[in-house]
Amino acid sequence: MLSMAQEVSIDLGARSYRIVIGGGLLAEPTSYEGLPRASAALIVSNTTVAPLYAAALRKALTGRYSKIYELQLPDGEEHKSWQILQRIFDVLLEQGCDRKTVLFALGGGVVGDMTGFAAASYMRGVPFVQVPTTLLSQVDSSVGGKTGINHPLGKNMVGAFYQPQRVVCDLDVLATLPAREFSAGLAEVIKYGPIADMDFFDWLERSMDDLMAHESAALARAVRRSCEIKAAVVGEDERESGLRAVLNFGHTFGHAIEAGMGYGVWLHGEGVAAGMVMAAELSRRLGLVDEIFVERLVSLIRRAGLPTHGPILDDKNNAWRYLQLMRGDKKSEAGEIRFVLIESPGKAVVRSAPDGLVSEVIDACCR
Amino acid sequence: MLSMAQEVSIDLGARSYRIVIGGGLLAEPTSYEGLPRASAALIVSNTTVAPLYAAALRKALTGRYSKIYELQLPDGEEHKSWQILQRIFDVLLEQGCDRKTVLFALGGGVVGDMTGFAAASYMRGVPFVQVPTTLLSQVDSSVGGKTGINHPLGKNMVGAFYQPQRVVCDLDVLATLPAREFSAGLAEVIKYGPIADMDFFDWLERSMDDLMAHESAALARAVRRSCEIKAAVVGEDERESGLRAVLNFGHTFGHAIEAGMGYGVWLHGEGVAAGMVMAAELSRRLGLVDEIFVERLVSLIRRAGLPTHGPILDDKNNAWRYLQLMRGDKKSEAGEIRFVLIESPGKAVVRSAPDGLVSEVIDACCR
Repeated sequence: MLSMAQEVSIDLGARSYRIVIGGGLLAEPTSYEGLPRASAALIVSNTTVAPLYAAALRKALTGRYSKIYELQLPDGEEHKSWQILQRIFDVLLEQGCDRKTVLFALGGGVVGDMTGFAAASYMRGVPFVQVPTTLLSQVDSSVGGKTGINHPLGKNMVGAFYQPQRVVCDLDVLATLPAREFSAGLAEVIKYGPIADMDFFDWLERSMDDLMAHESAALARAVRRSCEIKAAVVGEDERESGLRAVLNFGHTFGHAIEAGMGYGVWLHGEGVAAGMVMAAELSRRLGLVDEIFVERLVSLIRRAGLPTHGPILDDKNNAWRYLQLMRGDKKSEAGEIRFVLIESPGKAVVRSAPDGLVSEVIDACCR
Repeated sequence: MLSMAQEVSIDLGARSYRIVIGGGLLAEPTSYEGLPRASAALIVSNTTVAPLYAAALRKALTGRYSKIYELQLPDGEEHKSWQILQRIFDVLLEQGCDRKTVLFALGGGVVGDMTGFAAASYMRGVPFVQVPTTLLSQVDSSVGGKTGINHPLGKNMVGAFYQPQRVVCDLDVLATLPAREFSAGLAEVIKYGPIADMDFFDWLERSMDDLMAHESAALARAVRRSCEIKAAVVGEDERESGLRAVLNFGHTFGHAIEAGMGYGVWLHGEGVAAGMVMAAELSRRLGLVDEIFVERLVSLIRRAGLPTHGPILDDKNNAWRYLQLMRGDKKSEAGEIRFVLIESPGKAVVRSAPDGLVSEVIDACCR
């Protein structure tokens, strides 16, 4: 219901935009008021999401654009490639779309990242709108302007920082999300507690059962607070020169898990969940947090239906394999791995750690 | 000689940078002082330019970067494609290059545009330096931050606005440039007169013989003044929302010529030269400038060794073919062609024109 809609503003000067959050927003024409004028729009979706929501979005946009084109990409992280991205450019050029054409990303993180990068690059930049249909993309990937595609040698290695004109988070669409993907999204929600807001963490502990039951008021609060925290961090550091890195709590280990298992075997949020446990344990062994904090985090992650241990990536030398994968991560500099650690509950810090200690953590946290 | 070096500053706030202009600068370590620190650099060049200058550039950078990689792309506009761009990402990832790695574009516009787009996109942005080796790239494409690649359906359709950290214009390298390419570069030099500075145009009329003889003081002045004018325009309108379009004087017709003939048959500067004549003639027929101005422009273009007529693109309906190609140009909006016209000598204006009048101009200016 539109009257329940909430808003979060992302303050980035000329690139500021609004996130609107609520039930039924996707199909509401008012959700798209005030967007740049254009004669054409392109809805980019995938073969899973389009049958569910593309018609409703198109209907909501009718009257705003005289031509509305649609493109369905294949579903899945393995299709986050240049070859598939090229299809967006193909449609735009075949239809003679000009540099004012507005792109709508209707789907999860893969659709959002690819559509965003296409918008950043088509004629050197056209407007785009995020309509995220997964919890993960509502609380994380659709906010902050990171766009991109994978390269055979690494994930998200090619892309752009490019801000959407708006993010429309329709909470009703989460009802159709598979349980495993819903849990994966909760990993990023949980993340915001240890790095920024332990009151939110306390609330998550009290509300995890409601969230797992898709209780709408709880969902709205979880999405809004996640977006608020991300907005605050991104507002301070749009291009990830420093502070923004704290959003990657759990991601250094998590990316190694995703890459080591082969993309798609573990969901991103699952890798982040196990990665947060490992990063928290590393923080503990460095004397930054106590065992109680780690246990609380592990318990909350478990209640969200997420893994609390990393997988064995190499039977012979598992820790070495993790380290090797982490050294290839985007955040590493001159081969040094940068970890996002918890300095104290509610506050993150980015720093390196001795390989020996990291190996011990990997050994303790994988099975 | 370094003592002769001149500088132009591009003022874009946090993205400001310097253009250094002079003889012998490419091989001078001081040309690269003050660039962001990094452990690695990648010199991207092509098979024509690399044998001439890559060793000298590498030598100048030794001591600044502990690892210097090199990549040679195939030479030619037809290789300005995603497939070839991918080779830059391949090398960067194979060598484990981090997000501080500095890319050096050593070559003409194609190398500069591709290296710039690779820098804009690799890990969502790494620093890059332009070392343009053609007159065209020194006075135009290396300044202003336009980067990109071609798509089978259109030129420069995929790219980014992304500023270099520095532009190093070594005038000595122009000595090895083929005469036809040197002339093509002069087209963009001549352009700056009618759109912004008729004193410069007067000077070009007096100095064209010196320029054609590669006289170094004349070259330095032509390059510096061209960069200054471009810098001023780009400083006002980095992302081409309005004013910057005046830099495309001659380009709407010129792009149609390039596309209609097949890319590479006419050089970009040759298309722009004939395109400027057509745009000037259109301006005259709209009552904006007089015949004397058009004749002066035609004469200067001819003295620079450039074409003063457009080619016949279609034996049956040439004007229709030009119009069709121009409607597909990036600058067109909802199918309306936007022409950069001369409102009065030294002042450009962007506007549309009746198809009938444009057709008459095409008929009069092609053979």
